[in-house]
Amino acid sequence: MLRAVPLALTLLVCLAAPLESATLAPADLKTAAALRERALKGTEAWETVASLSTEVGPRLAGSEGDRAAVAWALDRMKAAGLANVRTQDVMVPQWVRGSIAVSILEPWPQHLVATALGGSVGTPEEGIEADVVQVPDIEALRALTRSEVEGKIVFINRRMERTRDGTGYGQAVVGRTQGANAAAPLGALAVVIRSIATGSERFAHTGTVTYRIDIPRIPAVALAAADADVLERQVATGKPVRLSLKLGSRDLPQVRSANVIGEIPGSDAAGEIVLLGAHLDSWDLGTGALDDGAGVAIVMEAARLVLEMKLNPRRTLRVVLYANEEFGLSGANVYANLGPEDLARHVLAMEADLGAGPVWRLDSRVADDALPMVHAIAGALEPIGVEVGKNTMEGGSDIGPLRRQGVPVLSLQHDAARYFDYHHTLNDTLDKVDRKALDQSVAAYAVAAYLAANAPADFGRLPPQPQQAPAPATAPAARR
Amino acid sequence: MLRAVPLALTLLVCLAAPLESATLAPADLKTAAALRERALKGTEAWETVASLSTEVGPRLAGSEGDRAAVAWALDRMKAAGLANVRTQDVMVPQWVRGSIAVSILEPWPQHLVATALGGSVGTPEEGIEADVVQVPDIEALRALTRSEVEGKIVFINRRMERTRDGTGYGQAVVGRTQGANAAAPLGALAVVIRSIATGSERFAHTGTVTYRIDIPRIPAVALAAADADVLERQVATGKPVRLSLKLGSRDLPQVRSANVIGEIPGSDAAGEIVLLGAHLDSWDLGTGALDDGAGVAIVMEAARLVLEMKLNPRRTLRVVLYANEEFGLSGANVYANLGPEDLARHVLAMEADLGAGPVWRLDSRVADDALPMVHAIAGALEPIGVEVGKNTMEGGSDIGPLRRQGVPVLSLQHDAARYFDYHHTLNDTLDKVDRKALDQSVAAYAVAAYLAANAPADFGRLPPQPQQAPAPATAPAARR
Repeated sequence: MLRAVPLALTLLVCLAAPLESATLAPADLKTAAALRERALKGTEAWETVASLSTEVGPRLAGSEGDRAAVAWALDRMKAAGLANVRTQDVMVPQWVRGSIAVSILEPWPQHLVATALGGSVGTPEEGIEADVVQVPDIEALRALTRSEVEGKIVFINRRMERTRDGTGYGQAVVGRTQGANAAAPLGALAVVIRSIATGSERFAHTGTVTYRIDIPRIPAVALAAADADVLERQVATGKPVRLSLKLGSRDLPQVRSANVIGEIPGSDAAGEIVLLGAHLDSWDLGTGALDDGAGVAIVMEAARLVLEMKLNPRRTLRVVLYANEEFGLSGANVYANLGPEDLARHVLAMEADLGAGPVWRLDSRVADDALPMVHAIAGALEPIGVEVGKNTMEGGSDIGPLRRQGVPVLSLQHDAARYFDYHHTLNDTLDKVDRKALDQSVAAYAVAAYLAANAPADFGRLPPQPQQAPAPATAPAARR
Repeated sequence: MLRAVPLALTLLVCLAAPLESATLAPADLKTAAALRERALKGTEAWETVASLSTEVGPRLAGSEGDRAAVAWALDRMKAAGLANVRTQDVMVPQWVRGSIAVSILEPWPQHLVATALGGSVGTPEEGIEADVVQVPDIEALRALTRSEVEGKIVFINRRMERTRDGTGYGQAVVGRTQGANAAAPLGALAVVIRSIATGSERFAHTGTVTYRIDIPRIPAVALAAADADVLERQVATGKPVRLSLKLGSRDLPQVRSANVIGEIPGSDAAGEIVLLGAHLDSWDLGTGALDDGAGVAIVMEAARLVLEMKLNPRRTLRVVLYANEEFGLSGANVYANLGPEDLARHVLAMEADLGAGPVWRLDSRVADDALPMVHAIAGALEPIGVEVGKNTMEGGSDIGPLRRQGVPVLSLQHDAARYFDYHHTLNDTLDKVDRKALDQSVAAYAVAAYLAANAPADFGRLPPQPQQAPAPATAPAARR
């Protein structure tokens, strides 16, 4: 998953605690080059995604698959030779997608391919039938009057732009997360959105809807692009378009899940931690091979190669596979609930959660004086096509709670041009994972993590930042 | 749809009734060039597919959509200015896909994306649970003994090759049509196949299963490629793999549907017919934009352009939109049930049923002496990239019954390299239809039809051929 970040936040950035400028040791850079070349020769990362896809499959927070994934991760980490392999309890929501039936009733009946947005309430058992009011985006919806919306189903027909860095997603996704909040106060009965996605294969793309606590909850579903097209073309005739929507989604009580953690203990600075994160949960539709099986495999394999090559990094390399990223960042929030001392031990955090495309840019958010070290890391990745990015990096859902408490971050940007073709769909499966691109990613993470763990200085601290979510809201994790 | 043709048939070919060699008139070739250029400027074919996709959608034989499609076609033909617009009654089977649930139970539980093969019987209400026996193809299945198969579910894991001419389909599809017939005598409880398809988007591809009348019927379903992959990988571990299959497919009584026919009456040879066919029905999953909405649009638009340009062809151009191609060629068989006199009036038949890719080759099956005319037609299409093909053409499901009674045929081959990514799936939707490629196809059909209608001689007769289907069999159309 990827979350939208208010632009304002990126303008508020100022970095605290400047350090003495330091650079990386030539011996470490030489070792990193060997590590990189080792990864490019072929890793076990693809086999790890294959194993997770085959032996676990979908692993929605709170589901049977989620429990199987935790057991799988413990086994894999131990088999890889990581130390201190353990779980950390996390309570997670348990939402059930249920069945869905969306049809155009008039003027020309058709069944539409649709899926519930994650966290959506269901409809009454008999369903909802109502006329459609189409808007091009959420801003246009907000400009409507109650008389234009009341008693209707709102259709947000926003298209997403395809970009290498995935920024089109952030621009479009507000219609998914906030569409229900914008429509319900105007008296809408439900919200139907064009999937926040690129590509035109006929899959509906799920993802969370965020209900505000002070606004009535209405069902929220996404249509496949081809079905949004059909609806759009029927609306374009000017005839009234009537929809039927039946949705069986519901919440069950919270259940226990877990972050899964393993380490390569550091040599002379074992008390300091370089964190490599990914999330173990997935949506329930696909097998989560890209989101975030690839990330899981990349960070586990990066650590395994460091072990295989007996590199004994100075700082501790900690792999954290987070519980429930998709549905409220439960694992990330539990993990980051640290005292000041434990927090201070986190020298740097990285996260892999943008699919399996090759890494093409190294973004960061570190103290200015640490930038030469970031540039030296980027230099070690230049032979595999990685360029230096910006030091105002904001993404990284699972490491966000650490970053907002001052922990510096590195972010290896994967080529995401195709990612949103598959993201949050049935179609997120192993065949979309390219073995070579995955090995390149492993090389990038392994090198970055190793060099950070051996860096002569730390990466400073970031000024504390506010939480992302606009108040007053109920995060999905808080719902029952 | 596309059907496999036994290789032996193509070897039996000998053409009867040689004619005086004739060639096309320069004036006609000049007119044809103008027609071609007119089409390339932009036609209404895409709008026709859009209209069919939007206002009708799926139109499985016997369904509400099928009835709507007949009404739509009558309206469109009249609006296009065709004469003698009419229906021809056709009784069609009425098969209901019903719900499906396919899961791996052991060793690692997963739900699989699957769909019933067309015509499949359902399972008992409680479903079937059994171990899987995997085979690479139907030949390997036939080599198994009863003790290896009895009480099991057979998994035919045959991959299809991607080719421009679609021949990979013919090679692979026997596992779909005949898999149940091969498995049931060995005591199998059901057949599960890897979809006969190219591409790896997660769609199950339907298509008919053909039950032999002397063999017990067992349920037959197709898995999406990614799900066949999961099953294959679980089988590859050597652990016993257990499947659960619940399928609600069933047959209802036959109902009335119709071929829809319209004409451009010929000028001085109105009694002779050049037939342009496509099929109006589709599978129930997608909106049948490619199969065969594109074909419907191409042949209707080819005729409309001939009218628009007031070309007054010598022979009658007849557009036939066939009922129920997918499920037993009901419409084609009814249409071809002609007396010798009516049959003799059919000078040539063409059919568009291979998607919306551009036309790249002109195949034929005409008397040898008529080949110069075919080559002249191909010459008129050379500027749009069409090459001369073979005169042993065998395809063309809907014109097959005419061909087997001696009617010569032309076949414009569409580039089918991507066709089997979408074929018979949910994903057969309008966005897969490229406007430019469709216009090129219209140009090709319009030119070929016009030149054939004005040709100075006819195309001879073919020797009668046997039926395609191996006996003893029940064609789907015969089932109730």
